[in-house]
Amino acid sequence: MTKLKLAIAGLGRIGKIHLENLLQTPDVEIVAATDPDEGSLQYARDKGVPFTTDTFEEMLGGTQIDAVLICSPTDTHADYVELSAKAGKHVFCEKPLDLSLARVSEVLETVKDAKIKLMLGFNRRFDKEFRKVRELVKNEAVGIPHLVKITSRDPGAPPVSYIEKSGGLFLDMTIHDFDMARFVVDKEVEEVYAKGAVLIDPAIGDAGDIDTAVVTLTYSDGTMAIIDNSREASYGYDQRVEVFGSKGMVQSNNNFHDSHKLYNNQGIHAALPLHFFLERYQEAYKTEMKDFIKGLSNGTMMPVDGNDGLQSLKIGLAAIKSIQENRPVKISEIG
Amino acid sequence: MTKLKLAIAGLGRIGKIHLENLLQTPDVEIVAATDPDEGSLQYARDKGVPFTTDTFEEMLGGTQIDAVLICSPTDTHADYVELSAKAGKHVFCEKPLDLSLARVSEVLETVKDAKIKLMLGFNRRFDKEFRKVRELVKNEAVGIPHLVKITSRDPGAPPVSYIEKSGGLFLDMTIHDFDMARFVVDKEVEEVYAKGAVLIDPAIGDAGDIDTAVVTLTYSDGTMAIIDNSREASYGYDQRVEVFGSKGMVQSNNNFHDSHKLYNNQGIHAALPLHFFLERYQEAYKTEMKDFIKGLSNGTMMPVDGNDGLQSLKIGLAAIKSIQENRPVKISEIG
Amino acid sequence: MTKLKLAIAGLGRIGKIHLENLLQTPDVEIVAATDPDEGSLQYARDKGVPFTTDTFEEMLGGTQIDAVLICSPTDTHADYVELSAKAGKHVFCEKPLDLSLARVSEVLETVKDAKIKLMLGFNRRFDKEFRKVRELVKNEAVGIPHLVKITSRDPGAPPVSYIEKSGGLFLDMTIHDFDMARFVVDKEVEEVYAKGAVLIDPAIGDAGDIDTAVVTLTYSDGTMAIIDNSREASYGYDQRVEVFGSKGMVQSNNNFHDSHKLYNNQGIHAALPLHFFLERYQEAYKTEMKDFIKGLSNGTMMPVDGNDGLQSLKIGLAAIKSIQENRPVKISEIG
Amino acid sequence: MTKLKLAIAGLGRIGKIHLENLLQTPDVEIVAATDPDEGSLQYARDKGVPFTTDTFEEMLGGTQIDAVLICSPTDTHADYVELSAKAGKHVFCEKPLDLSLARVSEVLETVKDAKIKLMLGFNRRFDKEFRKVRELVKNEAVGIPHLVKITSRDPGAPPVSYIEKSGGLFLDMTIHDFDMARFVVDKEVEEVYAKGAVLIDPAIGDAGDIDTAVVTLTYSDGTMAIIDNSREASYGYDQRVEVFGSKGMVQSNNNFHDSHKLYNNQGIHAALPLHFFLERYQEAYKTEMKDFIKGLSNGTMMPVDGNDGLQSLKIGLAAIKSIQENRPVKISEIG
Repeated sequence: MTKLKLAIAGLGRIGKIHLENLLQTPDVEIVAATDPDEGSLQYARDKGVPFTTDTFEEMLGGTQIDAVLICSPTDTHADYVELSAKAGKHVFCEKPLDLSLARVSEVLETVKDAKIKLMLGFNRRFDKEFRKVRELVKNEAVGIPHLVKITSRDPGAPPVSYIEKSGGLFLDMTIHDFDMARFVVDKEVEEVYAKGAVLIDPAIGDAGDIDTAVVTLTYSDGTMAIIDNSREASYGYDQRVEVFGSKGMVQSNNNFHDSHKLYNNQGIHAALPLHFFLERYQEAYKTEMKDFIKGLSNGTMMPVDGNDGLQSLKIGLAAIKSIQENRPVKISEIG
Repeated sequence: MTKLKLAIAGLGRIGKIHLENLLQTPDVEIVAATDPDEGSLQYARDKGVPFTTDTFEEMLGGTQIDAVLICSPTDTHADYVELSAKAGKHVFCEKPLDLSLARVSEVLETVKDAKIKLMLGFNRRFDKEFRKVRELVKNEAVGIPHLVKITSRDPGAPPVSYIEKSGGLFLDMTIHDFDMARFVVDKEVEEVYAKGAVLIDPAIGDAGDIDTAVVTLTYSDGTMAIIDNSREASYGYDQRVEVFGSKGMVQSNNNFHDSHKLYNNQGIHAALPLHFFLERYQEAYKTEMKDFIKGLSNGTMMPVDGNDGLQSLKIGLAAIKSIQENRPVKISEIG
Repeated sequence: MTKLKLAIAGLGRIGKIHLENLLQTPDVEIVAATDPDEGSLQYARDKGVPFTTDTFEEMLGGTQIDAVLICSPTDTHADYVELSAKAGKHVFCEKPLDLSLARVSEVLETVKDAKIKLMLGFNRRFDKEFRKVRELVKNEAVGIPHLVKITSRDPGAPPVSYIEKSGGLFLDMTIHDFDMARFVVDKEVEEVYAKGAVLIDPAIGDAGDIDTAVVTLTYSDGTMAIIDNSREASYGYDQRVEVFGSKGMVQSNNNFHDSHKLYNNQGIHAALPLHFFLERYQEAYKTEMKDFIKGLSNGTMMPVDGNDGLQSLKIGLAAIKSIQENRPVKISEIG
Repeated sequence: MTKLKLAIAGLGRIGKIHLENLLQTPDVEIVAATDPDEGSLQYARDKGVPFTTDTFEEMLGGTQIDAVLICSPTDTHADYVELSAKAGKHVFCEKPLDLSLARVSEVLETVKDAKIKLMLGFNRRFDKEFRKVRELVKNEAVGIPHLVKITSRDPGAPPVSYIEKSGGLFLDMTIHDFDMARFVVDKEVEEVYAKGAVLIDPAIGDAGDIDTAVVTLTYSDGTMAIIDNSREASYGYDQRVEVFGSKGMVQSNNNFHDSHKLYNNQGIHAALPLHFFLERYQEAYKTEMKDFIKGLSNGTMMPVDGNDGLQSLKIGLAAIKSIQENRPVKISEIG
């Protein structure tokens, strides 16, 4: 059997994770890598990647490849997806495709025309906790869903410089929760009401963003979702989902360092949640790559596609508009 | 020491609970009771209440009393409080004082002029779970509060006939959560955004009400609260609070029938939450009466006063307006 | 309906609990009380007990009574039960009947001859946690029981003066666990192996007792039970049971002050177990009295009878022998 | 840096796990493998192992190696360790070294003379749960340990043919718990009392073994440990440890498939424990190999050495003797 030939663009933190996971995936070889940083290219060569270069175009043309992983900075995503599509390569791209709705639509058009497969990196869809919630909802274990509750809090805020380019809390962080809201009940959101505040760091407010938020989503059938976000949970990464329905409720919890309970005269003490996404989603990243490879190999649909990126972006843009105008915003008002 | 002489108006379910609890409270005697139903009066006599009558006025004038408990239907509350106040009797009144803001203000004016003490029956304030949350917040165990989350779901919807007179979900059910939102962080709410749906029983919709709701509250300092409600949780009464702040998070959980865990080849199984408020708040009702008696006996403030009733009503009315107009409503817009 | 007339002997801590609980039981009146301490008698009179005296015999003869509660010191139990039985009064007696097997047998003979009902105060049988375990075992939820595990640790050791008269750890403390071992699986114990140590207070060792113990029980069908005891758990009263069987396992847990969880950068923190038996078994004591009254009123068996006391005493004596001889001891070797 | 050259003997289930984990370990190469089965050798070659052979001796002599992993059947362990030691190779050997105490002592003598490093495969020592328990005990978080409780139940019994050669429950299964008892409190066991029964499968009894056991261990300072075992827990692999001491208690729990809780009108339902050791100790096996490599590379002690194997074997033999003679057996009576 001939192995799938993959190229990887961007060898930052997440690019390296995917590279390492793919090195352990059967029937796959990483044939090329690109990154502007020579150290990262050396890292790739040490891992056995035969062809490395500092330009995306050279990587794309330099060797025979089946698919490209795009893990480079957000502002390169749209261009790289287009270039790959035009070259007939399948693509895995970290989210978001772009912060502009028009640009995303354009890219998806190109992808469609090129008939390539595109998978987006909403890594949480591959986490066993959320998969279990979705599976139980799908199997009607909770009956008809009425309420979805998503808690998503980071252990610490990113640098303001990051926030200035990321599109802000709703587009760099909550966008995962918007996707989760669609994922767990498999329905489209119709309206968004968002409320935000700067409660952690005034510098975030100065940069025009918020650090704490509550978002109410309404699906077309009246089901509602609530998301609560914070850039800084002192106890670590907080990632919980609850779905309440006509027949019951399902909750998923955080993942913890270990299960110990220490009883002493002060109370009972237990370990903290895993600190951040690298720890919490370590297995999810592996599953994500396996599912990408599966999607490439057989004729099935990709588990997260361009439309998933588009819908979450729309919800995010509606949330921003909702904050600005302090009113509920219909998704249909966006784009 | 002379015992406090109490009269009780209304011997329905909650009136009987208070009566039984007071019978076990030292230094208190129930000297009179009123109810339109002769069977209920017989019940009171069997419990040793010496003076019983079917009119409130007769009860008030018929014997020497220090304070009155008003447990009669909602539409009698305002009148009975006024009559008691004018007679110089202290009052414990089940919530709400009235569904009309104007009438509540009027009654509170009368109470103020009469210099009597008024305590309102927000029973959840006396539950050990929520008291612990408030205590930890007060002690800054979570630092500065950023987010309050309240889940409040009943095991089953009341009859539509009740809903038609109760003021609807926000005034008969969520009003407890509005009070809880003020209680746990000891701050006033400034703005309300409510979203509701009829997902359980169309008859509730026909009666002009909703059965499922999500409410976002904003306090004046930017702190936000989220309340989610359902009239029907298949697994029983769901009453949880979470406060997230700059230094941590505190959660309270439901109370369960017992702590057993059964492991078998199907999974791990545990007992349901206590079914409804009578079970869950059994101890809270006792504490409530003790604190009322304490408030009467010494010079301290009542733990829940007329203003608490007023503020929660305002939030409720703002929530109703928010649903009607699908927009956030400032508390200052109300009344 | 005529009320059951009860007399109570001994108004120490546990006597007062029973008195208060009985005062709130319908169709029961406490007609007499005895205690050597005048203050305790005054307490009874304040509670409305009409006849009080400092001698048991006077109490028994002084007024018309149906049953006697014996809550006086252990060394009076046997005599008082006999006197009551001979007077034709039913009896509730705190455990143990006596520390001597011969004396217990004698008393049970008298009880049998007198055809009175005797209930023994193994209060834990009335705790909802252990009842649930027994119920699930009875319903074969765990299949055929293979292993029973009982953890029983007190928050602090009693004074050495108490231990000197109590019969020691196995007869004053573990005896509850021996009863529990019989209760949850409804089988008789055949063999005992006990291992003990003095790890908490050398003075306990000087008094000839141990403060920490592990006991293996074998039932006649090969099922095994393990009990672990400590006189001093720094985190409070630890009372857990686990039954493992061919189809599953059931566990009961401690009862805690409240359900709060506090998350901060040090970990997750929860409340301690209820401190000791008065808190943990508060409801159990009420149920115990209700079940005693039920046993008196109708023709049913008492839920804990003299034989239950006898069997637990035998296991306790076997455990003592096992420690002394460091070998497994058959129950048939005892008495 | 030159890589450590390893050879692996035995490519059954556990040998393959070690091989895969080592393939992902930096600075290590697997240079040779042996197994009687040609399919397994082909598997090794597919994984890139250059030299494969069906005899241990050929493997040992066929290429330059630093250390040998012995994952072959138990009855080869002693011989292979001796051959490796005499060839000056360091050894990782799955437990047990041998079922005969005399033979183990002999092998350890050879190891000592050869001055090679020997690590034994007590994989549970590398599990994060038990490591946390040990760490907390070491840091005196529970004060002075008084009681150790180990629950260890398999999801299903092995074939009787396995039991006939394994040395039975105490030597193939409980031996891990004997090691755990030594590991968590870092103390030696002095006396053993074991009680066993055949409650699952009469065929196990026919083979001279038991399938359910309770073992009491006494350490030299009076601390006690209790182990309970079953060959068949219907709900999966049950591996828990609890250490109770003068200042508190620490517990570790099982690891579960996921954290979901499903609430419906039947109760609350959660996922089962991970099914068996391959799932539960997946990460532990990785840590075990890392620690073996670390032990080889630097001058530190091996985390589990020959003496650990010897001590656990002695406890196991004492347990067998205890069952046979139904009496507590001193470790000093063994060997």
